[in-house]
Amino acid sequence: MVVIKAISPFLFLSFELLAYLCPMRKLSMEELGRKSVEEFRESDKNPIIVVLENIRSAYNVGSVFRSSDAFLVEAIYIVGYTSQPPHKEIKKTALGAEESVAWKHFETSAEAVADLREKGYNVYAVEQAEGSFKLNAIGFEPEEKIAVVFGNEKAGVEQSTISLCDGCIEIPQLGMKHSLNIATAAGVVLWELVRTKL
Amino acid sequence: MVVIKAISPFLFLSFELLAYLCPMRKLSMEELGRKSVEEFRESDKNPIIVVLENIRSAYNVGSVFRSSDAFLVEAIYIVGYTSQPPHKEIKKTALGAEESVAWKHFETSAEAVADLREKGYNVYAVEQAEGSFKLNAIGFEPEEKIAVVFGNEKAGVEQSTISLCDGCIEIPQLGMKHSLNIATAAGVVLWELVRTKL
Repeated sequence: MVVIKAISPFLFLSFELLAYLCPMRKLSMEELGRKSVEEFRESDKNPIIVVLENIRSAYNVGSVFRSSDAFLVEAIYIVGYTSQPPHKEIKKTALGAEESVAWKHFETSAEAVADLREKGYNVYAVEQAEGSFKLNAIGFEPEEKIAVVFGNEKAGVEQSTISLCDGCIEIPQLGMKHSLNIATAAGVVLWELVRTKL
Repeated sequence: MVVIKAISPFLFLSFELLAYLCPMRKLSMEELGRKSVEEFRESDKNPIIVVLENIRSAYNVGSVFRSSDAFLVEAIYIVGYTSQPPHKEIKKTALGAEESVAWKHFETSAEAVADLREKGYNVYAVEQAEGSFKLNAIGFEPEEKIAVVFGNEKAGVEQSTISLCDGCIEIPQLGMKHSLNIATAAGVVLWELVRTKL
């Protein structure tokens, strides 16, 4: 393992010595510096909006709320029959993040995309499509406003929605299934969008 | 959006023109080039082993199988009371990946770590701990054998297991919760480990 960013000259020491110097004690809840709902709402967000189009499982929706909280996402746009808070199953996997992350419901993806355009967002569908860009081969401008659309667990993003987007982003997958759970896929894409900003 | 890797001179054209040139048609199942169980087992894997320590939810285990299939992970080590295939709930979220990805059960993490050491793996706990390395600030050698340990949904990785590890890897989180679902966290960490190999 190579340490890329060094926070002190000691980090250039060998990893073995480092491990000796750092006892790797788990941090307590108090030490994590978690934000309150109030602090979260007032803090600067990353200019990222997640669009959830016809997601069947409310557990998946809750999990996306939790990841969106972790990565300070601006908002979640809930489209079509995707469940909305307050919802028992969303609450179970969001663990409170449904109260911190802003969200809005739209009947159709076309309405959601129109709203995003008005706000200056570029809109990308996360989908395996012709001409899609591999997630590891694209870079975003630091200030670029980005919306990422995730589709139904089985059907994916509707072709009619893809046609409204600026492009498709694809998570390269190598195995037997060529599909990730939608909450996992959202976590991966959000991480890729924020990893250079941390 | 900036295209970093160009696959043809056309990719240096503006994104608008590109979008025009590429109709973004969704790919069919047949076009995805998915591997069969047989092909998956025979293909070269990434030298990554995922360790699941006392994971309560079999759905989470299944989801980790699915992500491990997508990112060609060598194996999953199932520790303690973490559910093992065949299992109805694992099957529901793994969608068949429980048959492609190799796995092995260990009674304790100490036994799993001993096995990993014997195979030449460096072992990192995914945990928020003193002296942990931020996921976005580390680099791995291309051929480095890496095992990543994920702990129970509530308790995280046991302190006694952390003490056996080479270090802790932390996913920087900025929000109210400071925690990700374990299946999402596994997806994010696996993506970070394979993104430069794709």
